Amino acid sequence: MLAELCCKRHPGFWKMLTVAVCMVLLGCLQAQEPQGHVSIILLGATGDLAKKYLWQGLFQLYLDEAGKGHSFSFHGAALTTTKQGQEFMDKFLESLSCPKDVAPGRCAELKDQFQRLSQYHQLKTSEDYLALSKDIEALVQQEGLREAGRVFYFSVPPFAYADIARNINSSCRPGPGAWLRVVLEKPFGHDHLSAQQLATELGSFFQEEEMYRVDHYLGKQAVAQILPFRDQNRKALDGLWNRHHVERVEIVLKETVDAEGRTSFYEEYGVIRDVLQNHLTEILTLVAMELPHNVSSSEAVLQHKLQAFQALRGLWKGSAIVGQYQVYTEQVRRELNKPPSFHSLTPTFAGILVHVDNLRWEGIPFILMSGKALDERVGYVRILFKNQACCAQSEKHWAAGQSQCLPQQVVFYIGHGELGSPAVLVSRNLFRPSLPSQSWQELEGQPGLRLFGRALSDYYAYRPTREQDAYSILISHIFHGRKDSFITTENLLASWAFWTPLLDSLAHEVPRLYPGGAENGHLLDFEFSGSQLAFSQRQLEQLIPGPGSAPMPSDFQVLRATYRESPLVSAWPEELITKLASDIEATAVQAVRRFGQFHLALSGGSSPIVLFQQLATGHYGFPWAHTHLWLVDERCVPLWDPESNFQGLQTHLLQHIRVPHYNVHPMPVHLHQRLCAEEDQGAQAYAEEISALVTNGSFDLVLLGMGTDGHTASLFPQSPTGLDGEQLVVLTKSPSRPHHRMSLSLPLINRARKVAVLVMGRLKREITMLVSRVGHEPKKWPISGVLPTSGQLVWYMDYDAFLG
Amino acid sequence: MLAELCCKRHPGFWKMLTVAVCMVLLGCLQAQEPQGHVSIILLGATGDLAKKYLWQGLFQLYLDEAGKGHSFSFHGAALTTTKQGQEFMDKFLESLSCPKDVAPGRCAELKDQFQRLSQYHQLKTSEDYLALSKDIEALVQQEGLREAGRVFYFSVPPFAYADIARNINSSCRPGPGAWLRVVLEKPFGHDHLSAQQLATELGSFFQEEEMYRVDHYLGKQAVAQILPFRDQNRKALDGLWNRHHVERVEIVLKETVDAEGRTSFYEEYGVIRDVLQNHLTEILTLVAMELPHNVSSSEAVLQHKLQAFQALRGLWKGSAIVGQYQVYTEQVRRELNKPPSFHSLTPTFAGILVHVDNLRWEGIPFILMSGKALDERVGYVRILFKNQACCAQSEKHWAAGQSQCLPQQVVFYIGHGELGSPAVLVSRNLFRPSLPSQSWQELEGQPGLRLFGRALSDYYAYRPTREQDAYSILISHIFHGRKDSFITTENLLASWAFWTPLLDSLAHEVPRLYPGGAENGHLLDFEFSGSQLAFSQRQLEQLIPGPGSAPMPSDFQVLRATYRESPLVSAWPEELITKLASDIEATAVQAVRRFGQFHLALSGGSSPIVLFQQLATGHYGFPWAHTHLWLVDERCVPLWDPESNFQGLQTHLLQHIRVPHYNVHPMPVHLHQRLCAEEDQGAQAYAEEISALVTNGSFDLVLLGMGTDGHTASLFPQSPTGLDGEQLVVLTKSPSRPHHRMSLSLPLINRARKVAVLVMGRLKREITMLVSRVGHEPKKWPISGVLPTSGQLVWYMDYDAFLG
Repeated sequence: MLAELCCKRHPGFWKMLTVAVCMVLLGCLQAQEPQGHVSIILLGATGDLAKKYLWQGLFQLYLDEAGKGHSFSFHGAALTTTKQGQEFMDKFLESLSCPKDVAPGRCAELKDQFQRLSQYHQLKTSEDYLALSKDIEALVQQEGLREAGRVFYFSVPPFAYADIARNINSSCRPGPGAWLRVVLEKPFGHDHLSAQQLATELGSFFQEEEMYRVDHYLGKQAVAQILPFRDQNRKALDGLWNRHHVERVEIVLKETVDAEGRTSFYEEYGVIRDVLQNHLTEILTLVAMELPHNVSSSEAVLQHKLQAFQALRGLWKGSAIVGQYQVYTEQVRRELNKPPSFHSLTPTFAGILVHVDNLRWEGIPFILMSGKALDERVGYVRILFKNQACCAQSEKHWAAGQSQCLPQQVVFYIGHGELGSPAVLVSRNLFRPSLPSQSWQELEGQPGLRLFGRALSDYYAYRPTREQDAYSILISHIFHGRKDSFITTENLLASWAFWTPLLDSLAHEVPRLYPGGAENGHLLDFEFSGSQLAFSQRQLEQLIPGPGSAPMPSDFQVLRATYRESPLVSAWPEELITKLASDIEATAVQAVRRFGQFHLALSGGSSPIVLFQQLATGHYGFPWAHTHLWLVDERCVPLWDPESNFQGLQTHLLQHIRVPHYNVHPMPVHLHQRLCAEEDQGAQAYAEEISALVTNGSFDLVLLGMGTDGHTASLFPQSPTGLDGEQLVVLTKSPSRPHHRMSLSLPLINRARKVAVLVMGRLKREITMLVSRVGHEPKKWPISGVLPTSGQLVWYMDYDAFLG
Repeated sequence: MLAELCCKRHPGFWKMLTVAVCMVLLGCLQAQEPQGHVSIILLGATGDLAKKYLWQGLFQLYLDEAGKGHSFSFHGAALTTTKQGQEFMDKFLESLSCPKDVAPGRCAELKDQFQRLSQYHQLKTSEDYLALSKDIEALVQQEGLREAGRVFYFSVPPFAYADIARNINSSCRPGPGAWLRVVLEKPFGHDHLSAQQLATELGSFFQEEEMYRVDHYLGKQAVAQILPFRDQNRKALDGLWNRHHVERVEIVLKETVDAEGRTSFYEEYGVIRDVLQNHLTEILTLVAMELPHNVSSSEAVLQHKLQAFQALRGLWKGSAIVGQYQVYTEQVRRELNKPPSFHSLTPTFAGILVHVDNLRWEGIPFILMSGKALDERVGYVRILFKNQACCAQSEKHWAAGQSQCLPQQVVFYIGHGELGSPAVLVSRNLFRPSLPSQSWQELEGQPGLRLFGRALSDYYAYRPTREQDAYSILISHIFHGRKDSFITTENLLASWAFWTPLLDSLAHEVPRLYPGGAENGHLLDFEFSGSQLAFSQRQLEQLIPGPGSAPMPSDFQVLRATYRESPLVSAWPEELITKLASDIEATAVQAVRRFGQFHLALSGGSSPIVLFQQLATGHYGFPWAHTHLWLVDERCVPLWDPESNFQGLQTHLLQHIRVPHYNVHPMPVHLHQRLCAEEDQGAQAYAEEISALVTNGSFDLVLLGMGTDGHTASLFPQSPTGLDGEQLVVLTKSPSRPHHRMSLSLPLINRARKVAVLVMGRLKREITMLVSRVGHEPKKWPISGVLPTSGQLVWYMDYDAFLG
């Protein structure tokens, strides 16, 4: 059919056309020598996205590029029959619009040209694909052209990807010397695993460099300006774009619409998958990444972006707050035929706190927020700088453009909102930015308009000279092979790896319901503290506790009892850790007051991690400068191995406190480049170190755990060493990997002034019950041998471990 | 004469009087049993302070306390003759005022009673003091009373202190069982040394518990409320009063008056000694200190205050900006008869950045600001909290009392300013504070009044039910022995120890001139960055550089040349360190890229400290996680000794970066509780560690210094070890203390890939010249033996060392 279309043209048509377009549209630009023919195949050519953006984007590409040496043909494709498809397509093409500065008559001509180059194809079977390929080859040959490349734009649902990809790969690749580009639209999977599967599947058909995954936010003008802005204002930003000067970064996309009519999609995705995992995360990396020397190098940009992903601190449940507009569940019931008992847990609003754990950004909150049914439609990235000024004059005298005491911010305004267009704003008291004057112009003042706490006139404000649709921009980038505007496989998987644990942990979280629109009031406001987010207002049902309201952890008292005839502290996990941490602090303060120092021996494992974190951040009075930290036991791996107990201690505690280097005593499991070799006498060396520094070898506090087999420290049942005898530190063997261990011995542990045993989690329930009944049988249950000679033993058990 | 006065009274007068006062003034309060007689001697009774505040304070004490069991007599004293003195005094006493609620007739009666108990004494000679003492004893005996104690209030210039103190101590102490309290007014010295001398002198006459040093700001109602406020609002503040929530603390005292008429005093003191070292520092400690469990325990408060002093990070020149109002020098010339060539360097305005280096406050700026000839008179302490909220609604919808996105602050408003009275303000979106309702009441709204960026109505605002003068409050505290409202010797010396280094370093600093009043504009605004303060606006003469303007460091280029045939980088100190730091980073990045790790050997001493600081804070890309840190040399002292090179490294670098514990390699100078014993083989152990981890023993970079005797590392001229031979690490001896050292050997140093020698300061000029001329003579000048076999040597010298 394409052949038919081509027959209508006389020879040399392509060349003439490009010259004509160039002369009329592009004025001074000279037509270049033919650079070959590009075929663009739009799959899903009759769908919504195609209708709304893609055909217009292709038309724009044609207008922009046709005079510059390439020739084009455009191929709509779908499952629809040729006749019907062509009719649909003709209708779309008829409604295309020209740039404002093109006269109506000229516009009709251009549209006509474009239409003549465009053709519908039904693509169902592999024969169809083969036929398409042949058509293109025939056309190219007939016109005496060289084929430069083919673009396949997948505007189809993801379940159709594999088939299409297979067909393109087997039947529709261009010949040698010409490139293939396939353009993919989200969703790119649902979580890390599905994204990986999809990526692997696509990877079996296409090379990485052939794939262009679209995140259309990367084509939004204000977003696309982030890196150029950082580059062109390096001098001003170099000293500012870091944790010393930035107070916070907000990346926000608010919508007023809700999900009505789209719940079948939305119910599966929710706001985090729909907006945060992709759009907001991409923006985050553009703000946070180290700026490459050459921002026009796609490779460098993509590499630095990936490094930014690697620096993101893992998310946990506490990193997020989620909400759902009130009528959402009703909409889902209606649209998806769910019973009245159905309640959706899908979030339609989310706030996320992200930390970037590198020297540039450590400690600076990046806040991502998005939701539906909110009070306004707006998108922006706001970099708020720390107020590090002091003004000697009364605030009445502060001049907005000069006073360093007024807020300083840089805003990339993506669109909508009160401004109604994309913009870049820089506080006048910050610096005068440089923006490319051909594409950005100063924004006229709008009296009375306030944005982010300041009058618009307090900013240097710029808007694009010509507003362009994101898809037009991205289609141009595809054509020019600018891969940094697209999501690479590595980037995609890094993003899913970042988000999936949070999505999993939120799976059963009940979102806070909100009425929608301005009525939301302060209901969705949230606050962060450390690495935790929480709604500012407590739930109403908590403010007015009814008879059936769920009990809060704080409603429970720490239970005091005895276990094995020693004091037992039992509580919910959070309270338990809080209590243990403050008990440790009290012991430390007392020891430092009495002896000038505090010797603390810590166990590894997962339970103490939360304890370490709490000690690291919440205990201001802890006398770290006078504390010596010892290990209770260690795995025979290098200290830098992730399995090493010391590594856990380092990550969760040492990094955050100021304990002198020489007060930290890792176990010498790694000597002479060997692990726990008897000949290296590491255990003896540790014992000597203890004897030299710890009076009588009596630690002030030893923190132990208990294994499901009754082991404690690295003293396992039937251990030939460490359960008795003279040795202070011993090499032992564990039934689980890594088998070799170093451990304090029971006799040394029992010299301590205080021993705390922390037992948490349901898995410990059985051993807890068992050990409560056994006598002193350390050979069978080493934990039963913990009995300080003259010190105190206290058990700390959470309700799961203790009550089951 | 006192006897005469007493004769006018009939027996039982004291008792009757107290009952009468009690019944009339205090209503329901019951008169208590006599608790003895208190004599209050006001030295300098005819001076300004006495006239303005002290007599009124004593009268208030009499009104408050006379009904509660003690009897009083008041003794004015000065050098003036008895007749003239008594006349002066009578005039002062006549002008005393009663509280508002006392009727005029009753007031006259009370003043009359007070006057009858008050008596003037000329105190010049030791006989005078003896006579005073005898008079008091006689009075007490005659009236059948027991002496409870004596208060001597020194309202005299400090040069008179010693004489008076000697006389009191030798002739005027009360008998056994009665207390002595001496009240001292500032200045308490001029710097740490003079304060110490004064304290020693006073200490030879008085016990610590006898001395009450007044800082009248501690009697200001809003200041005196800081600790009670923190105590009564513990629940709300516990989680807020720390670095996680406080953004900054501002302690500000602005004056509109200038120093005219007082320049003879002011010229010697300046604003830092006059206001910051005492008033603002005291306030700082009240805000920063850990809150004792019992805030009414003087002992606990004083101890915690002292701990706060110990946590203050040392000040340096960069911690301060100073100004001087323009006509000050003229005023000094006129008042002190200085020639027209005279220019004063005394600051009349200062801004200081203080950091409190403990876990509670680390990183939070405490800004102290005070000055004369400013645009308003006001004093306040403002605790601004971090904005850790995100509001889902557009800012139009934020409600002042609820939105967590609006500023949150607690202000102790000392007085004056737009409010015109002391006050405590707490943002309504923070919490509703609890204040003692008998002494603090809610402040009525003043429409339109804005304070600290918010309307007054956005605060919970309280003012004292009765405004009281600071001296009245302090005199009452003296009487009740509340020592925590006064400056102990330890506290005083801690404060001077904190301020003196800054005062020394500012001694020759030219203050920025300011016109005074509202005309100051933004001229005095300042900003902080890290631990450095700077004026926000550059000096005008720098903005418009004239032919005679002083060159700025950045005007100079880093000079590149050679020295001893190796590359030389020479520059002003700041540029030099900046260059060296970025060279080190570049080397590190390259090494990690090539080898996966970077081995850096660092020298101790003072020059590298600034380098460490710069590396710690300014180099975001430094691959610390892959860097190994080694010591070039070490003093044979324990690692925790302040003299240890490692300690400097720890304080200035390790504390601030995230280098893994096991990548840090201190020299083992301290083994088996001995220092550098040959038998302990520490040098060999270090050599083994190097051999095990550093390929070929080739450090990637060795940083050396050069001593004035030509030594480098700890290799001194004529050293029998380390200058050649096979040993990698050696024990050496230094001509200066501590004599014993451990050092890398020259042969090991020369294996490095790169050696940087940092030489700074004028003292190095001579050796720099000398070494430039000598050949390879390591025995005489060890530095001349530094010549990497296959690596690169670069010299970094500042202009002082290189150009002299």
